[in-house]
Amino acid sequence: MIGVGIIGLGYWGPNLLRNFADADGARVTAICDLRDDRLAAAAARHPGVATMRDVGELLAHPAVDAVAIATPVSTHADIAMRALQAGKHVLVEKPMAASSVDARRLIDEAARRKRVLMVDHTFVYTGAVQKIAALVSSGELGNIYYYDSVRVNLGLFQHDVNVIWDLAVHDLSIMDYVLRARPLAVSATGVSHVSGGHENIAYLTLFFDRQLIAHMHVNWLAPVKIRRTLIGGSQRMIVYDDLEPSEKIKVYDKGITVNSQPDSVYQMLVGYRAGDMSAPHLPGTEALKTEVAHFVDCIARGAEPLTGGASGLRVVQIVEAASASMAARGRPIEIDPVTGAMRP
Amino acid sequence: MIGVGIIGLGYWGPNLLRNFADADGARVTAICDLRDDRLAAAAARHPGVATMRDVGELLAHPAVDAVAIATPVSTHADIAMRALQAGKHVLVEKPMAASSVDARRLIDEAARRKRVLMVDHTFVYTGAVQKIAALVSSGELGNIYYYDSVRVNLGLFQHDVNVIWDLAVHDLSIMDYVLRARPLAVSATGVSHVSGGHENIAYLTLFFDRQLIAHMHVNWLAPVKIRRTLIGGSQRMIVYDDLEPSEKIKVYDKGITVNSQPDSVYQMLVGYRAGDMSAPHLPGTEALKTEVAHFVDCIARGAEPLTGGASGLRVVQIVEAASASMAARGRPIEIDPVTGAMRP
Amino acid sequence: MIGVGIIGLGYWGPNLLRNFADADGARVTAICDLRDDRLAAAAARHPGVATMRDVGELLAHPAVDAVAIATPVSTHADIAMRALQAGKHVLVEKPMAASSVDARRLIDEAARRKRVLMVDHTFVYTGAVQKIAALVSSGELGNIYYYDSVRVNLGLFQHDVNVIWDLAVHDLSIMDYVLRARPLAVSATGVSHVSGGHENIAYLTLFFDRQLIAHMHVNWLAPVKIRRTLIGGSQRMIVYDDLEPSEKIKVYDKGITVNSQPDSVYQMLVGYRAGDMSAPHLPGTEALKTEVAHFVDCIARGAEPLTGGASGLRVVQIVEAASASMAARGRPIEIDPVTGAMRP
Amino acid sequence: MIGVGIIGLGYWGPNLLRNFADADGARVTAICDLRDDRLAAAAARHPGVATMRDVGELLAHPAVDAVAIATPVSTHADIAMRALQAGKHVLVEKPMAASSVDARRLIDEAARRKRVLMVDHTFVYTGAVQKIAALVSSGELGNIYYYDSVRVNLGLFQHDVNVIWDLAVHDLSIMDYVLRARPLAVSATGVSHVSGGHENIAYLTLFFDRQLIAHMHVNWLAPVKIRRTLIGGSQRMIVYDDLEPSEKIKVYDKGITVNSQPDSVYQMLVGYRAGDMSAPHLPGTEALKTEVAHFVDCIARGAEPLTGGASGLRVVQIVEAASASMAARGRPIEIDPVTGAMRP
Repeated sequence: MIGVGIIGLGYWGPNLLRNFADADGARVTAICDLRDDRLAAAAARHPGVATMRDVGELLAHPAVDAVAIATPVSTHADIAMRALQAGKHVLVEKPMAASSVDARRLIDEAARRKRVLMVDHTFVYTGAVQKIAALVSSGELGNIYYYDSVRVNLGLFQHDVNVIWDLAVHDLSIMDYVLRARPLAVSATGVSHVSGGHENIAYLTLFFDRQLIAHMHVNWLAPVKIRRTLIGGSQRMIVYDDLEPSEKIKVYDKGITVNSQPDSVYQMLVGYRAGDMSAPHLPGTEALKTEVAHFVDCIARGAEPLTGGASGLRVVQIVEAASASMAARGRPIEIDPVTGAMRP
Repeated sequence: MIGVGIIGLGYWGPNLLRNFADADGARVTAICDLRDDRLAAAAARHPGVATMRDVGELLAHPAVDAVAIATPVSTHADIAMRALQAGKHVLVEKPMAASSVDARRLIDEAARRKRVLMVDHTFVYTGAVQKIAALVSSGELGNIYYYDSVRVNLGLFQHDVNVIWDLAVHDLSIMDYVLRARPLAVSATGVSHVSGGHENIAYLTLFFDRQLIAHMHVNWLAPVKIRRTLIGGSQRMIVYDDLEPSEKIKVYDKGITVNSQPDSVYQMLVGYRAGDMSAPHLPGTEALKTEVAHFVDCIARGAEPLTGGASGLRVVQIVEAASASMAARGRPIEIDPVTGAMRP
Repeated sequence: MIGVGIIGLGYWGPNLLRNFADADGARVTAICDLRDDRLAAAAARHPGVATMRDVGELLAHPAVDAVAIATPVSTHADIAMRALQAGKHVLVEKPMAASSVDARRLIDEAARRKRVLMVDHTFVYTGAVQKIAALVSSGELGNIYYYDSVRVNLGLFQHDVNVIWDLAVHDLSIMDYVLRARPLAVSATGVSHVSGGHENIAYLTLFFDRQLIAHMHVNWLAPVKIRRTLIGGSQRMIVYDDLEPSEKIKVYDKGITVNSQPDSVYQMLVGYRAGDMSAPHLPGTEALKTEVAHFVDCIARGAEPLTGGASGLRVVQIVEAASASMAARGRPIEIDPVTGAMRP
Repeated sequence: MIGVGIIGLGYWGPNLLRNFADADGARVTAICDLRDDRLAAAAARHPGVATMRDVGELLAHPAVDAVAIATPVSTHADIAMRALQAGKHVLVEKPMAASSVDARRLIDEAARRKRVLMVDHTFVYTGAVQKIAALVSSGELGNIYYYDSVRVNLGLFQHDVNVIWDLAVHDLSIMDYVLRARPLAVSATGVSHVSGGHENIAYLTLFFDRQLIAHMHVNWLAPVKIRRTLIGGSQRMIVYDDLEPSEKIKVYDKGITVNSQPDSVYQMLVGYRAGDMSAPHLPGTEALKTEVAHFVDCIARGAEPLTGGASGLRVVQIVEAASASMAARGRPIEIDPVTGAMRP
């Protein structure tokens, strides 16, 4: 039975708390937040859990084997590092850290300490993303041509990071998992509509090897909520709409066929192919429940998580490159294919 | 009664033919196409119209006062120039010309000849775009923050131009009409999935003065058809979905209020405001009917059309800049605010 | 080459005219309407067609082998009878006649004259309904449990018939074709909101053998347009939404399994089964084109149409029974399973 | 501070428990269920609450001033009566009782004991229904012409009651609240697809004074979930879609105008009017929270609830009449306008 400490009980922490409390093989032994009202509310629902305002105290607690960190982004790296140094396994909310330097340090420390370091890329654990990844890796879609996502709504401007760090991280982590490919360059644009604030609307283009392109549109200031991803392949194409209650994924047997000897003046010899659409049935399990079980299982088995430190780092690296590009109005930033680092 | 010649009876020409045939104050006197079957089909429905395979013959026809040109993009400028030089009024399909140099020449020639030169930016004449333009110019939306459009579907790859020249021209002409502002720089990205072909998927960001940003996503290789534009203002926001049969425009009384003295660590003092949504009733008149009537009226009154040569040129200039940026993977291209020309 | 005369050029007649004009094996030789403006407009598009105001004149025309009748319902039977008596093949708009007595006489006359009598149940010839019928008859849905349709919108109040005669006839003809079963009883309710008018909103329940039930909701006074049919089977269920541009039919692999020995106090041992959904690709051919070709083919082969007089009669019989039930606020009216006649 | 006992912790009870636990002016003092596992789970989240398996024990508990009953329908009346006789205020889940006789007894007992008797018609307390009721009572819709609801999905077959008792009760309670009118007759149809089971699909028509008609479609065996109500008025019409996340109510400024002197043979002089649509902003408060606060407030003020015993009785009376009609395949059952009782 793994003892888990929850650090941070703001927006996301209570979800972690609830799922760890219900998880097999784990129990929540301690919770930590700066605000007494949050601690009191959580303690009322989880009697017997130790409460504390100081992270150090939680890390020193003998019944804490692992921690789940749901604090502001700027504090992720420091708290995760202290936890690893104290010998704890770590599940840290996305984004993993506020810089790739910090992310890399965490990876090294976890390796040194032989501790599980997992990033809370929640969407990866949804039935929808698992299904998409399976469809892509099976080759059913053919060659992947593009990955296009839109994640917009009205709400929750973050004060310490731009909208890429907040919303695009979801799409980048999904894309990283589904495509299993690294971008070679990034061009991003965006603007802030709040004086002195970070960008609240942003567009990212990611260039990959060959013909694959990815694009993300994130926006905190949209009148409607949209969560839609199009994935185009040479054989099939997917529409993934996370707001659909029951048919989140639609697979279209559609595409083009190209004749290599175009001889028409007005139009290439492109043929259009349209077949059936199907929406696979998806399990309804809460993603965080699956994720927490996976974390517990990785600890028990000493295994590397699906969304380990390496995936967290890859996402942070892209966000850094995108932010640099955005500051230069879309100037493309090249990324080292091996290290993931921006090229000067 | 203005005699009209229709040049080109491919995809769009028959629509021009039908609308000019029904228009008050005009009659179709001649039609021209390289293909006899198209001429025969059109003549069967419009008995009494002269048919010919040669543009020069049509331009020399005594009963032709004006022409509507619906030929491939690469021929627009040449045919339009010959028509103007022959003293005809000209309605030319979008995009106005394949280069801004050509577009400018047409404007000059039309001015010299005192002829009406109008570009077929059809969407400008829809009830929806007219309503949006009225809402924006009335100030009801407040300051415009962003203009974001998506125009994707599976179909009709063009062989002589990239997807920006084909699809984004619609959005650029709508934006040009609605915002009445010129971009200062463009960053665009895209890729071709057809060997040796032009880009079939593209993303454009347009930077304007102050906080206004525009973005367009166009794609010939999407599994579903999307025609959606979001326009965000400081007071209200619009969702314009051209595929909605009856509620194409929704106006949201939503937005944010920003407190200038942020003092929270975790979140800016941004307030979220949500009020009613309304969908104004729109007239159902076919846009092309309105447009054709406007063209006839401009000829009669010697007036400048809503979508005259100047707007056609502005759109072509942006497309040129976007294509240049796309070739450089998003490198921002600056645009001269006065002339609209790319800066070196 | 069959010569066709079109009788009635109001709302639907021009569509018949256009499709017969384009049909292989047929040509439109004469058209007839009481209004000169309609005749003139049609003649302008179809030069060479004889025009006339009198039906008798059209029926006497030597180049008329068959007629398509698109006049008000109350005149269907008389005109169709005169046409049959004049030896013409007949395609008559739905509903076939204003009474089952009239419908039966037409069937008898057509049989006696050996002429094709076909009812314009247009929806039967759509790709969607053809697909649904194939799915049902293949047994893929299992036992059919229910057929539920909604057909509502704002518009076109008829002055001579209630909404069942106008809108429900579409659903009854689809149902008749798909289920290939006759109802044993009908209960219908409705009301008129126009002083002195016929019912503009109505609900029909049809009882069949065993567990099958059908229901239709028709309404001329709805704020939105809905065209949706649910068909529930023991193995699969269909949602048919005629307003969907491309995915009109969705087939759900969903259902229940029932344990025969319920032992729970609170809930039966009903298991819920949910699998994939699929939307078969449908051909985009205009239904009326298919239908007209079928009519021409039946004449050529001397064959009975898919929607011959018998199906037209069955639909009229149900409408009569439903109208009688509606007048008695839902009192069930039994139908003779052999003759289809109402039982006293 | 009112002490509340929760009776029944199956599907709905935990929601009552949670809301009473959070309510101002109330606290949960005791909970009761036959199953120990449910009691244990609830107690873990609500430490300090007394748990018991026997209703009598709960009713005898000194700290219980009021009870919330969420047990099977067949037990509602008995438990509620015992609670009233023990001097408790009662909130009973819908439907209020399994018969109108029982419902009436509860009303009498509550009056005699001067206790609050409230029925958990939850939807009445939603922002959407409150808004609809306000629109109707303000006269903004004009005369109400029809009320049409569809409530279908796959799931939760009840073993002790038919689908009217389960699903239509929601619509009947909403309709009762919104229209403030009593039906004069009911015609209902339905069928069971489970051997020996109650009807799982049903259709109800309610006849009112003058031109008003209501209809409800309920179904436990539908492939998709639909929760849509159309309300047609002479001035405006409402579409209420409970599954819409943010625009649950749309008000259409649409309708007809009727000329009283019809003189056209083919069509009445009905004019069609189409104006703007608007979707009022609705508060997001959980309905049950509002309802629980209202119950507590009614107890404190000795006031009659919005959904008191009288509304519960009216709903049960309609369900009884509908079930009787359904057993007779739609035969209309008249209802006494004063007592609400079925007429023989």
